[in-house]
Order: sequence, then C-alpha cells, then structure tokens
Amino acid sequence: MTTRDLTIAEIRLTPILVADAPLLNTQGVHQPYTPRLIVEIVTADGVTGLGETYGDTKYLELARPLAERLTGRSVMDVNGLFALDLGVDASRVEGQMDAGGLRGVQSADKLRLSVLSAFEVACLDAQGKALGLPVHALLGGKLRDSVEYSAYLFYKWAGHPAGVTAEPDDWGAALDPAGIVAQARTFKERYGFTSFKLKGGVFPPDEEIAAVRALAEAFPGHPLRLDPNGAWSVETSLKVAEELGHVLEYLEDPTLGTPAMAEVSAGTDVPLATNMCVTTFGEIKEAFTRDAVQVVLSDHHYWGGLRNTQRLAAICAAFGVGVSMHSNTHLGISLAAMTQVAATVPDLHHACDSHYPWQSEDVLTERLVFDGGRVAVTDAPGLGVVLDRDELARLHRRWAEDDGALRDRDDAAAMLMGEPEWRRPAMPRW
Amino acid sequence: MTTRDLTIAEIRLTPILVADAPLLNTQGVHQPYTPRLIVEIVTADGVTGLGETYGDTKYLELARPLAERLTGRSVMDVNGLFALDLGVDASRVEGQMDAGGLRGVQSADKLRLSVLSAFEVACLDAQGKALGLPVHALLGGKLRDSVEYSAYLFYKWAGHPAGVTAEPDDWGAALDPAGIVAQARTFKERYGFTSFKLKGGVFPPDEEIAAVRALAEAFPGHPLRLDPNGAWSVETSLKVAEELGHVLEYLEDPTLGTPAMAEVSAGTDVPLATNMCVTTFGEIKEAFTRDAVQVVLSDHHYWGGLRNTQRLAAICAAFGVGVSMHSNTHLGISLAAMTQVAATVPDLHHACDSHYPWQSEDVLTERLVFDGGRVAVTDAPGLGVVLDRDELARLHRRWAEDDGALRDRDDAAAMLMGEPEWRRPAMPRW
Repeated sequence: MTTRDLTIAEIRLTPILVADAPLLNTQGVHQPYTPRLIVEIVTADGVTGLGETYGDTKYLELARPLAERLTGRSVMDVNGLFALDLGVDASRVEGQMDAGGLRGVQSADKLRLSVLSAFEVACLDAQGKALGLPVHALLGGKLRDSVEYSAYLFYKWAGHPAGVTAEPDDWGAALDPAGIVAQARTFKERYGFTSFKLKGGVFPPDEEIAAVRALAEAFPGHPLRLDPNGAWSVETSLKVAEELGHVLEYLEDPTLGTPAMAEVSAGTDVPLATNMCVTTFGEIKEAFTRDAVQVVLSDHHYWGGLRNTQRLAAICAAFGVGVSMHSNTHLGISLAAMTQVAATVPDLHHACDSHYPWQSEDVLTERLVFDGGRVAVTDAPGLGVVLDRDELARLHRRWAEDDGALRDRDDAAAMLMGEPEWRRPAMPRW
Repeated sequence: MTTRDLTIAEIRLTPILVADAPLLNTQGVHQPYTPRLIVEIVTADGVTGLGETYGDTKYLELARPLAERLTGRSVMDVNGLFALDLGVDASRVEGQMDAGGLRGVQSADKLRLSVLSAFEVACLDAQGKALGLPVHALLGGKLRDSVEYSAYLFYKWAGHPAGVTAEPDDWGAALDPAGIVAQARTFKERYGFTSFKLKGGVFPPDEEIAAVRALAEAFPGHPLRLDPNGAWSVETSLKVAEELGHVLEYLEDPTLGTPAMAEVSAGTDVPLATNMCVTTFGEIKEAFTRDAVQVVLSDHHYWGGLRNTQRLAAICAAFGVGVSMHSNTHLGISLAAMTQVAATVPDLHHACDSHYPWQSEDVLTERLVFDGGRVAVTDAPGLGVVLDRDELARLHRRWAEDDGALRDRDDAAAMLMGEPEWRRPAMPRW
C-alpha cells in the first residue's frame, strides 16, 4: 500500500482553436479553426490528468463553474461527477439542431455529459499516473494490443475560401469519385487504413453512390461506409441501401430520428449505424425495442466519458446491437482516450472513426501514430500522452485573439464564406 | 508512481461447509451446512485478495483448472477473465432447474459467471489492497456511505430434523403469520431493518397473504415483499397481486419464466421483481422488451462480479427498470463485495437482500455489522475484510470430513430428512 494524495488541488481549463481542413458535410464546411477545450486536473501531489472536449462557448460556460466545484474532491470519485447538477439551461438547447458539428439534436443531457467527459477522462489520466497504471487497467484491462480505425474520407475543397485566414493542407480537393478514391489511397499509404468511411450528404445521392462504387472497385473486399448525416428521406435511404447493399459494411444515419431509421431498418438488410439518433442513454430504449439501428457509434464525449462508453457497450451487447466509435474533430488526448477504452470493449467488430489524421496541429509533445490503420494501446501510466505547453499556449493565443467569429463552430457560416449563395438545406435534403 | 508487482503468484481455493438454519422454501429446506468456495488470489508482492462463491462440486470442478490458468496474469486484468473459455459442459446444466439454491433455470453462462465472480472479486480486493484504495474507488467511487438491506424473513423449523448433525439457532420456528411477525420484530431489534421480504411458496397462497397482511399491520408503511420463487400460476399470481397490491413494494418471481411473468405484469400495477427469469445478460432483451419485470435483483455471483453488476445496473437504468440485489446463502466476503458495488450504483431505490444474518459462522476475523438496517461502506483498502484462517481451516475440515452428502446443496433431500412423505412439487405449485 502506498500513500498518495489524490485530492484535486487545481483545475486548468484552456480553450484553444485548432486548424481544421475545409471538409464538407450536409450542414456546411469545417471552419479553418475549430474550438476545443483542454482540461488539466492537478492532484495535491502534483500529478496532472488531461482531458479534452468541445470548446464552444456553451461548453466553456458549464466547464468553468464545474472546475471550481471539483477542487478538494478525489480524482477517484468519477461516479460522483455524474451526480452533480451542472445547471444546464434546457430551454437553450433542447430540440435544437447543433449548428456546428452534426452532433444530432441537442439535449441538456448530451451537453452536460459532453462537458463532464473531459473531466472524467482527466480524472482517469490522473489516477493512472498517480497509481502507475494505464487507463485501460483502471477500466478492467485491455483485451487487445491495438485498436483499428477507419479512414475518414471527406468531400473537400482544396483550401478554405480566399480571404479566410487558414493553415494550408496538402490533401487537395476531393469533389467527385476520382477525388475520393485518390484521398482513400493517400489514407491507406500514409496510415495503413483498410476500412473507409465517406462523409456524405454533400452531393445528390447518385454522385455519392458512384463514389462508394469507385471505392469498392479500387479496394475490393474492404469495409465501406457512407454517412450522409440524416440528409435523406426514408425512400431515398432505401434506394441507396438497395444500390449499395452489397458493398456496404453499414449505412450510417441515412435519415433523421428513430422512427424514420426504424422504417429504413425494416426495409433493408443493410445494417444501420448511428451517432445521431442514439446519443444518450435516454434514447436507447425506443431505438433498440424498435430495431431502428444495428450499430451504435459511441463517442465518449457525448456519452460522458470512458466508463459510460463501457456501459453503452454492455447495453448494446445485451441487445445484440453492434458497437463502434464516432468521432468529431479532436486531438490526441481524445484519440488516446478512445483507444484506451476501445481496447476494453469485448465485442468491437467495426473499425472506429477518427478525424485525427485531418488535424495538423495537436497539443501533445508526440503525435499518436496509426500503423496498419491501428493505434497501439499503450501500457504507459494514464493515457500515456504528454502535454506540449508551448503548443497549448500558442493555440490558446489564437483563441484569445479571435474576435469571437470562430469560438463557436458554425459549419453553415463557414460555408457562406465560400459560397454566399448557399442556404442551409431543409431536411431531408434528398 | 509506485512500483508494485501485481502478477498473480498463487491462487488458493478452499471449499467449506457453513452452518445454515432450517429455512423453508418451495423446493425444500436449507441443509444444516451449505457449501461455499473461498478464493484467495495472492500477488507476487504477497497481497491477498478474497472472493467467495457457490461451493458445490460443479463450481469446484471449473474453479480448480481456472485457478491454475490465472497464475502469471495481472490482478488488474479482470476483463480478460471473462474472455476465457472455462469449458463448461452445457449439456450438464442447460435447462435444468438447480437442485439447491433456487437459482432459477441453470445455464452454462450462469455457471461460468458464478465461478468467475469469485475470481473477479478477489482480483478487485487484491487491487485495492495493493493500491491502497477501497474497491468502490476502483469502481468509480461510492455514491453513498451506507447501503440499506432488508430483513429476509423465512418460514422455518425450530431446528434441523432429529438425527441430523447441525448447529442450533436461536430463532425458533416460524410457520404462521404470528411466527413471521415475531421473526420480523427480532430482525428489526437486532439489526434495525425497516424493510421486510418474506420467502414464500411454502404454504398455500392464502396463508402467505395472511402473513404479509400481518406484517403490514405490525409495521405500517414499511416496504414489504413476497417471493414464492415461481411457485404460482399466472392466475394465482394475479390474485395475490390484487389482494396484496396496496401493501407490497414489489412481488418477486410470482411465476416462472419471462412469458408468464409478462402476462402477470400486464395484468397488475404491482411491480414485479426477479432473480429467476433475468439472471444473465442473454435473458435481458426479451424480458425488457416485453415489460415482464420492473425490478431486477442483481446477484454479483450470477452476473459475474462487480463490474458486471454495474453494467447490469446501467442496462436497467436505460430501460427504466429498477435494480436491487438478490442474495443466496453467503458469508461476509460476499456481503462486503455487495456493499461496495451497491454503493456505486446511481439508482438504487430498494433495500438489498442478504441472508447474512442467518449465517452464524463466517471466515472473517470481524463480522460485518448491520446498523439501522444498513452496512457502512468502508474506505479501507480492498473489501476491507480480514480472513480468519483458523475458522477457514475449521470449516474446510467439516467439508473434507463430509462423506459427500452435503457437498452439493440439495434442499429437497434435506426436506426429505424431516418430512419423508414430502415430494418435490410440480410447478406451478398453486
């Protein structure tokens, strides 16, 4: 037995803006910089745990008072975190579509859990560092030594609109089947991915069907997925399922809402995946009893951290529903967290999503590496990552110097900078 | 960070026979001694973790080779335990009713998990002792400082049948409403319980209805439960529900199997609890989608340990199903484990069951204490209990010297010792 002081002495919150590529989706395009929040939880012994989550104003507004309340508590007490009332103003969020990240319909619960997730992960990282154990050991131990990710293909512009300050990227444009196949080849060459997901809902379904067919031809037998973020009607979804059924591993959120997903599900054998209609525990019962989805794409930010991700996986297993992982723009702290928890999930039969290859910037001294499409599950204490304070400070200065235009991610506003005639589509778009 | 060696160096398995009172149930009566298995997992650093489970031959046969396979693994690797193939011979158990402990229909999965549970708990105890942390902290932290238990009332004989070697008990007989009320008063006086559960299925329903009514009169407003272990038909169950609905907190396993439970559930507003039709993860989907039960009584032995109990609780929460805890004859190691995990379950709105007050013997240097019907949640490392090696050796000698008659719990055989004319009832009995 050892003596350590696991009391939380200090919590540092650092909002940052990180470079993002001009990736298209049905709601617009990624901003040149996207807000993230870095959470550091420091114990009385000086051990620092790291967490990361969305950095938009509404998250910061909840994180700041929460950070003050946690001082003096134990980093071991993660269950207690979720019993706290964060005072989320439900009227500001309930039922609204999120403007930024295609996070599905907003809810007070999802907002609350998205904030808490960063604190839970930071607590686990601090626990692991203090106890000399990797996070996966705190979660019961890893079941695999590496976690498979899929290439996350996007339609994209070559660069952000003229006149917009942005970091350049070397991926070039991808606006048709040939561009998507070329992007996939680059993903495979650079990172070894053998599973591909295309973010759809950007062009009319026939064009995206053609892109998936081109991928199937270029990468025969490789798992393929298409995710239009709910841009289609039930009828369109069924048509796409019929045309692509033979090449798709699953179809992701073809249409919005559990009732419509259930209708699509009843009409096709193609498995449906979701990170839009099942995003909190309260949404599970209806979706599972109606057999609306066959795969839930967990996101530890939405679901409130790594233990909740394990709980979600257990629920899915009990109902014969598959589980994998969703990703929004994130940095290496979150990728490390995703990898640690994914290593502990028994029935992980689909490669996880990650935007990480699109992020040219990170707040770590050493970037995480994809080898053969997989990230190794480290046995180093905590998450096994080290904060680069200079880089954190630089990205925070960018946030501090922003006039507010970029502090709340808004893909539609970013789209209008490039295409002033563009209008946010009514859903279903097709 | 500290240096510890968490490798499993040795596992000791000690089957024992512990004294049990002549408690009646629909399948017979408790034997004078009941088999339990004590598991000790010793790390390379000499830290010993404790676990306990059923001690019948079929459990021992699986535990022994398992213990050998675990040497050299880490006590942190509890997820890995559940990925092991224990080589359960399904044909020997599937679909059979358990002869001994009213454990519901047997299944290979339940048998496997019942064995693994003791190893998981022992690993968690060893982890906690090695890291200087209570088990609840390893499970995310306690949400309460004490856990409420209910008095577990039984119809009982004054003593075991003449000629049977047995320890005497000071509870006297309880064979009618007055006897049950007197027993409840003793429970309340000795331990402070304010919630009462009657093990029914022993006498015709009208007699048990009368006993519950007598309890309601003697303890107005106190939560009451009746558990006939599936002895009734759907019709009888609905009749009892109608007669007792106004005084019951819930009715427990009135009838056998999910379809029959669903029928009862559809016909009454009295919540139905179960530890017989939902006993493994594979049984959840049907029961929950059919709304067959409103409360699942978890048992960390059946479900495979403390983390699985948390997973079950999460599934119940997502489906709006209540959760509490079942108990079979057990000792203090298991009560400590139950208390640690119960402290971490967010929505625990029913007092847990425990047979512990009926056990006059234990293998701990200090018995756990019920104060005001509650067990305090210790912050001592691990489970916070200490093995009494002399007592363990004494109870093991009893097992070793037994000719085999008591090594496999058989309540029907015990019943025939007292009432040679008794015959195992066909179900439903009434």
